[in-house]
Amino acid sequence: MIKVSILYPYRDNVRFDIDYYRDKHMTLAAKHFGAALKGWSIDKGVSAGEPGSAPSFVAAGHFLFESVEAFKQAFEPVAGELVADIPNYTDSAPQILISEVVTNV
Amino acid sequence: MIKVSILYPYRDNVRFDIDYYRDKHMTLAAKHFGAALKGWSIDKGVSAGEPGSAPSFVAAGHFLFESVEAFKQAFEPVAGELVADIPNYTDSAPQILISEVVTNV
Repeated sequence: MIKVSILYPYRDNVRFDIDYYRDKHMTLAAKHFGAALKGWSIDKGVSAGEPGSAPSFVAAGHFLFESVEAFKQAFEPVAGELVADIPNYTDSAPQILISEVVTNV
Repeated sequence: MIKVSILYPYRDNVRFDIDYYRDKHMTLAAKHFGAALKGWSIDKGVSAGEPGSAPSFVAAGHFLFESVEAFKQAFEPVAGELVADIPNYTDSAPQILISEVVTNV
C-alpha cells in the first residue's frame, strides 16, 4: 500500500479553510478516485509538540492506493480540476510526499 | 483523536534502518504507551511525486491518542529512553507534528 500525502506548510497568517477542504475538495477527490482509493484522511496541524508552538504543516490530506501506478491512473485525468481548486481553500503551496505504508496498526 | 507524527527529514546519504525502527523502536514505544495508544503506523518515504525525486521525509511514525494530554501522560515517563534510542536507527533529526484527525475513512 502507498500513501500520497499532500502537506500544506504552515506560516504566520496562512489561509486554510478546513471545512471547504473536507466537504468539497477531498470529497471531490475521493469521488473521482473511486474504487482505486483504499482510504483517506485529513489532519489539521496543532503544534510542533510544545503547547502553542507552530506546526510545520497547517493541514495534510492522505490518500491510500495499492501502488504508485494505481494513483497515477486515478489522478492524471482529474489533476487539472483538483489543482485548480486549491486556491479556493488555501494560499499554502502544498508539498507532495509518496510513502510506502510499512506498518499500520 | 490526535496524531503525533515523528517526521524524519530526508537528505542525501541519510541513514535510516527501517527494520530496527519497526521491530525495535516503534514496538517498544507502542508497548510503553499501552492502552493510551489508539493506533500507530510507519511510512517509508518514496518520492516527492515525480519518479526518482527525493521525498521530503525518509520515514515517519504516527501515533494516535485520544488527546494531547493522554499523549503527554504516556510519553513523559519514557521520553528519555525513546529519545536515547534514535541514534540506533537514524542520523536524521526528527520533527514532531501534533495534528487533530479531522477525517479518517
